[in-house]
Amino acid sequence: MPRINGERLLADLRRIADFGRYETGVHRPHLSPQDVESRHWLAQRMREAGLDPVIDGIGNVIGRSPKSGPRLLMGSHTDTQPRGGWLDGVMGVIYGLEVVRALAEDPETKDLAVDVASWADEEGHWSSMTGSRSFTGRLSEADIDAARFREDASKTLRDALAAAGLANVPRAQLEDGRYRGYLEAHIEQGGLLEATGKRIGVVTAIVGIFAMRIAFTGIQNHAGTTPMPIRKDAGVAMVRLANAIHDAFPALVGPRSVWTIGRMLIEPGAPAIIPGRAEMTLQFRDADPAILARLEAAATELVAQANAKGPCSVEVLGVSRTMPAPMDERMQDAFDAAAETHAPGAHMRMPSGAGHDAQILAQRLPSAMMFVPSIGGISHHFTENTADADIVLGCQVFADAAARILKSN
Amino acid sequence: MPRINGERLLADLRRIADFGRYETGVHRPHLSPQDVESRHWLAQRMREAGLDPVIDGIGNVIGRSPKSGPRLLMGSHTDTQPRGGWLDGVMGVIYGLEVVRALAEDPETKDLAVDVASWADEEGHWSSMTGSRSFTGRLSEADIDAARFREDASKTLRDALAAAGLANVPRAQLEDGRYRGYLEAHIEQGGLLEATGKRIGVVTAIVGIFAMRIAFTGIQNHAGTTPMPIRKDAGVAMVRLANAIHDAFPALVGPRSVWTIGRMLIEPGAPAIIPGRAEMTLQFRDADPAILARLEAAATELVAQANAKGPCSVEVLGVSRTMPAPMDERMQDAFDAAAETHAPGAHMRMPSGAGHDAQILAQRLPSAMMFVPSIGGISHHFTENTADADIVLGCQVFADAAARILKSN
Repeated sequence: MPRINGERLLADLRRIADFGRYETGVHRPHLSPQDVESRHWLAQRMREAGLDPVIDGIGNVIGRSPKSGPRLLMGSHTDTQPRGGWLDGVMGVIYGLEVVRALAEDPETKDLAVDVASWADEEGHWSSMTGSRSFTGRLSEADIDAARFREDASKTLRDALAAAGLANVPRAQLEDGRYRGYLEAHIEQGGLLEATGKRIGVVTAIVGIFAMRIAFTGIQNHAGTTPMPIRKDAGVAMVRLANAIHDAFPALVGPRSVWTIGRMLIEPGAPAIIPGRAEMTLQFRDADPAILARLEAAATELVAQANAKGPCSVEVLGVSRTMPAPMDERMQDAFDAAAETHAPGAHMRMPSGAGHDAQILAQRLPSAMMFVPSIGGISHHFTENTADADIVLGCQVFADAAARILKSN
Repeated sequence: MPRINGERLLADLRRIADFGRYETGVHRPHLSPQDVESRHWLAQRMREAGLDPVIDGIGNVIGRSPKSGPRLLMGSHTDTQPRGGWLDGVMGVIYGLEVVRALAEDPETKDLAVDVASWADEEGHWSSMTGSRSFTGRLSEADIDAARFREDASKTLRDALAAAGLANVPRAQLEDGRYRGYLEAHIEQGGLLEATGKRIGVVTAIVGIFAMRIAFTGIQNHAGTTPMPIRKDAGVAMVRLANAIHDAFPALVGPRSVWTIGRMLIEPGAPAIIPGRAEMTLQFRDADPAILARLEAAATELVAQANAKGPCSVEVLGVSRTMPAPMDERMQDAFDAAAETHAPGAHMRMPSGAGHDAQILAQRLPSAMMFVPSIGGISHHFTENTADADIVLGCQVFADAAARILKSN
């Protein structure tokens, strides 16, 4: 069984946090100068670990093992949210690096092959999961032509790639048959492990996300001279429907479903004017496609009832549907077994409520994910953190699970 | 009984609509070039009707009768909403002018004295009911120093008055004992007269307006990784309270109360982020102070219940209270009698849901108001209109009521 080196792991995590350090976190959007610098540092650390690294034409850093045994791909991302945390993404990449080193140091595992990747732009400053989509053949040249920086639309991805010296570098592509599967470790970004006293989460699926834009059309009018019975108040219609959704959903959801109305607008939005139009976005997530379908059907029915009842017209403007990505069952079993060895009784299965590169890789490879606890459930903020002991334990479980998968038939 | 001249009345209304004409309406904010021009035209028409006109230091046009008999003040405003209608305000001023002419033409009423005013800036482009507040001693020099144009804060009221040649003109002040009372005619701006087939509305009171700003504070978080049981969603708290208000108010209001949630904000307002903060404005209007107090108490109690129940904190940030302005009972009787003479059975008593200069004058003088129907209830829009026959009938009723009030003991 490989033994990871906790000090070496933590030292690498602390070193890469120097690139773009912000308070106790990191500000390192993909292709920022600090991001490019960190990619070159990472490639050098991969080389020192015996991998052959490349920085490809979209910014992915991929370290390939020269060994010829059974092979896994491990990865996550080293770009960060604006003024984000020091572990979101990076931890999974450095786990891969440490697993390569630990496997090589153990005579029983020294021939096992692991490639390690840092996927470009997981946080979507330029597009969405840009690097893993590129690697799996889901990103066209036209997509790259169209991509602009989220915070400054005058900056194009093409120019940023050129500035990083990547304009004429080919984009790495997944070779069929090269890998047994893909493994990704990540901080949980929620509070479930902490709340239940667990230290390892084995991900069953990355949830699907459905988002429904719902519009309400009434008649804008004077809030003093328009009697209540003849009003067509789009704001009232939105409040009534949102309330009905919050009343209806608890009986329809699964135990870990979430739903959110994160966006609500009323027009014109003045205290003395009856709103003539309103719009909201209802988003819901679950790992089970049947639950997602049931919630969409319920919301659609509530919209139809509200529209039929009046006095405002209510309609669904559009629905975006990202389907759940189930994780590989046998690889989940390997995580369970490794976790039971190193943290008996302190692990659980759970869905991932957030999106990850693994949902992209899962379209091409058997894939699995593992979580470690987030202190206070905090993420996407520079105060994000995980106890050192949990970081080290997680890497040991990850290494053990990788060895089990590579040694299995 | 005075006989008004409908053709002369309509001709004056159409002529003044030339100043700032916009589509079928008028764009004439106070002290715009078109507004200033219209004030000089109005002063000239007053002079031709036998009044002594002044344009005072705030822009009020006041035509004083040289007669010495019992005296009434009549008025409204000739400034307009942006791209507003041709009758909102102006009609009441031209009614006053026509009443002066009609009284003078009738031997029975030729000694009755009526002063006519066009109050400056009723629509509040610079302040709020600026001209009538000035006339009644409710507008200080400091208020004028502070006033800026609503659509362009670089323009000061002082500069605009100077540009109109009014910088060194005194502001006219109400003299105690000069008037028996104040009368104002206006379009209804709502659809009640039209819906009930009436042609004259006798205003019982100008409603009071209470506005409560209510804030909701939760915890902003990731909409994917934060389980429902631990969420503190400020948007849900707002929807729940707004719904409770819409449920509770119908049992507490009077027959003509109105309530509106015209402003709702949630922060940060993104589909995948649980709102950490929300805010809404609840406004309600009624002519009865007891009903306003009851609604404020009910809303305050619902806020307290929501705050106690959690998980978000809910608080009233502030309450603005404009109290109702009851209209004079004997003057209402005179309007009833005149309306019954000219439009038997086609008149009704009703509150004014909108604010008017009469609510300012009512603080110093017995005051009354009369409405004519608005086609389709439309106002504050260039398509605002009233049937010519209703405009003429309204002026006849207005003249008759004025004569009755002036001849009474």
